[in-house]
Amino acid sequence: MKGMMLAADELGFKDWLAETEPHMLAHALDHASSEDRTQAMRALSAQRADRIFGLLEPVNQLDVLQSVDERTRRRLLHEMEPDDRARMLSDLPVAIGEALLQELTPDERATTRTLLDYPKHSAGRIMSPEFVRLTPGMTVSDALEAIRSGQKRAETVFLMPVADDDMRLLGTVDLAQIVLASPDMRIADLAGRDVPAVSVLDDQEKIARLMKSADLMIVPVVEEQDRLVGIITFDDAMEVLDFEEGEDFARSGATEPVGRPYLSVPVLRLVRARMVWLSVLAVAASLTVNVLNAFEATLESVVTLALFIPLLIGIGGNAGAQSATTIVRALAVSDVVPRDALRIAWLETRTGFVMGLGIATFAMILLSILFDPSIALVVSLTLVFICTLAALVGSLMPVAARVLSIDPAVFSAPFVTTVVDASGLLIYFMVARAVMGV
Amino acid sequence: MKGMMLAADELGFKDWLAETEPHMLAHALDHASSEDRTQAMRALSAQRADRIFGLLEPVNQLDVLQSVDERTRRRLLHEMEPDDRARMLSDLPVAIGEALLQELTPDERATTRTLLDYPKHSAGRIMSPEFVRLTPGMTVSDALEAIRSGQKRAETVFLMPVADDDMRLLGTVDLAQIVLASPDMRIADLAGRDVPAVSVLDDQEKIARLMKSADLMIVPVVEEQDRLVGIITFDDAMEVLDFEEGEDFARSGATEPVGRPYLSVPVLRLVRARMVWLSVLAVAASLTVNVLNAFEATLESVVTLALFIPLLIGIGGNAGAQSATTIVRALAVSDVVPRDALRIAWLETRTGFVMGLGIATFAMILLSILFDPSIALVVSLTLVFICTLAALVGSLMPVAARVLSIDPAVFSAPFVTTVVDASGLLIYFMVARAVMGV
Repeated sequence: MKGMMLAADELGFKDWLAETEPHMLAHALDHASSEDRTQAMRALSAQRADRIFGLLEPVNQLDVLQSVDERTRRRLLHEMEPDDRARMLSDLPVAIGEALLQELTPDERATTRTLLDYPKHSAGRIMSPEFVRLTPGMTVSDALEAIRSGQKRAETVFLMPVADDDMRLLGTVDLAQIVLASPDMRIADLAGRDVPAVSVLDDQEKIARLMKSADLMIVPVVEEQDRLVGIITFDDAMEVLDFEEGEDFARSGATEPVGRPYLSVPVLRLVRARMVWLSVLAVAASLTVNVLNAFEATLESVVTLALFIPLLIGIGGNAGAQSATTIVRALAVSDVVPRDALRIAWLETRTGFVMGLGIATFAMILLSILFDPSIALVVSLTLVFICTLAALVGSLMPVAARVLSIDPAVFSAPFVTTVVDASGLLIYFMVARAVMGV
Repeated sequence: MKGMMLAADELGFKDWLAETEPHMLAHALDHASSEDRTQAMRALSAQRADRIFGLLEPVNQLDVLQSVDERTRRRLLHEMEPDDRARMLSDLPVAIGEALLQELTPDERATTRTLLDYPKHSAGRIMSPEFVRLTPGMTVSDALEAIRSGQKRAETVFLMPVADDDMRLLGTVDLAQIVLASPDMRIADLAGRDVPAVSVLDDQEKIARLMKSADLMIVPVVEEQDRLVGIITFDDAMEVLDFEEGEDFARSGATEPVGRPYLSVPVLRLVRARMVWLSVLAVAASLTVNVLNAFEATLESVVTLALFIPLLIGIGGNAGAQSATTIVRALAVSDVVPRDALRIAWLETRTGFVMGLGIATFAMILLSILFDPSIALVVSLTLVFICTLAALVGSLMPVAARVLSIDPAVFSAPFVTTVVDASGLLIYFMVARAVMGV
């Protein structure tokens, strides 16, 4: 909010509101306090308020809706894209969502309900049911006429689906094709099949990845028997990917995403997003107490062994985290698939071994000078084993997760570290017993 | 490769090559062995080979170029988009790059050199110098004519820059505007300023984030005095973001990205990508040996204390990693900026304290039953301190990195864990001394 107020001081609040680029303004308002946001929305012209409103985070859209008068609320709801409206409503408690639905026109209500009836994470939830449809019998000039009359409501006209009278999808035509064709050419002859259609029940993330990798700006969405029901645009697909990425990233640090601007999250909500994972990991980590307990006699006779515990399990954890990170990413971008498990294991085992050998050599030299040579030998040998094991375990855990249909990002650095800790200790004391005979 | 061969068996290799969707085919070839890839490229029709070639990873494009005859090589180089060609050449050793440059036509060579003269990571390196430029004096029908004659070479005609005879940028016009306007309307009256121009020296990532957040499909690129030199398209911007994301993700696991499909990376390259970070972290972790050494007497008198070392520093490391992950992401999406440091610190301190209190309560109950009550007290108190400290340190390290212009993702889970380890041990033994008087 400080930034907003600073800017407001310089330019004058009104000027700042009127002149700031819409996305920048929406970003500032997303991070403002509820009162400041409401005040700003009231001061905006109706047209600009509609535009800004559409760019706010869903949680803040709701906040604005609940603080403006009924007429403004109806207008804002009316101006939203149907898919955005459905997305916001789906995040609300049912009672509030229903109350807002009642404020829509019957038409809008029907459209919104249709979208909400599709399962969460399905294409149906993010598609736009408002588009310009061309028919195969149209000529290019008919099509231009259809674009002229339809483009105000449509989300885009850069690519248009072509469908027959039963709404059966026949292909797509892009605007450049229409511009370059002669006016009496038939749409049937222009329509192509280059742009794949997706099913209304397909997973959003899968579609978004397809659109990104194939550079598709728009894909048509069909129901059974190729019946055209909507289109998905690139910006909505990118929002899906942003969300998934945020989730992956959060999980890579053993926390769940909170889904709203960080500084507006209450402490207990942050605790809730983290506590489950922290507790699960703590329980897993308590295994280390058991391992050490089993070797308490060894530890008592050579207390010096305790000095290297954090160092050894730290290095092991880091080596494991490196492998896990590499494989989680490789899985996410389809560089590897679970059936590559053996090749992954072989590559990682060798990598871990080479790294372990490198660090062990260094440790051997340094520790022989500072400590007892037998301690130096135990620590160095353990390093080779731990690094090799950590790289192997760290790489296979995400693969196993994928096989079990769990998000591989869950087997993150913290998770791998915890697993490697206990096994690392076991290795350490077994090596110590073997070498020192304690 | 296995996938490719399986598919090839079913369909027949030729059919598979001819019928697979280009992106899927390129993906399969990116993961094939060098020989299989070359064989496949040779079997493709020239037109299809050009298309597929453009979709391969740069490292594989080079591989193909070096294995085909000179005529094919010239054709492939000729058909590449200028920005893609520059990107591939910039990744090569200078001598190989120069040799390939000599095979281009003088025109192509000049264009490529111009792009390569811009600094790495600048807009100049990813812009396309081939676009349809409109002039303010054109009518809509002139513009349509310009689009017809220019669209073959241009990367896109969905948005076109408008520039005067000195190439000074005046605005942009999108294709839908042209389609909907009457033929005698002047471009000067249609051109708008909604799409911001970027400078040829601007950072690629900054531009890509702008395009993504503002849903801009195309931005014009200018030199000094608004002189138009190119356009950047959404797909090239997304490639930049993909790369940055891959880098962030890799660094969050304390490794550097290797920049090629995982299974094709040699062991020593993987070692190189990880060894530096692993060694830095190992040196940092050796601090824990010093801390424990200082408390060796305490450890000798109460060996039971050693049992909880991995558990305590493990939990601390995880709590720190959670905070760091949250803040790295919040910084990346501009949810927080460095001047929010105090608010972040306050929020994280409370979050860490609440989580510490929760886990400590549980530990107190459990350990009182299994161990000496004074041990239970020491461990529980330490947990509260460690979780609070870890959350605070983990959240402020990425902020400090941003202030120092270091990539915040570098202060990742492994890094935070290592820092928290040493300070956690210090806390543990200080609490033990205070409570147990050892």
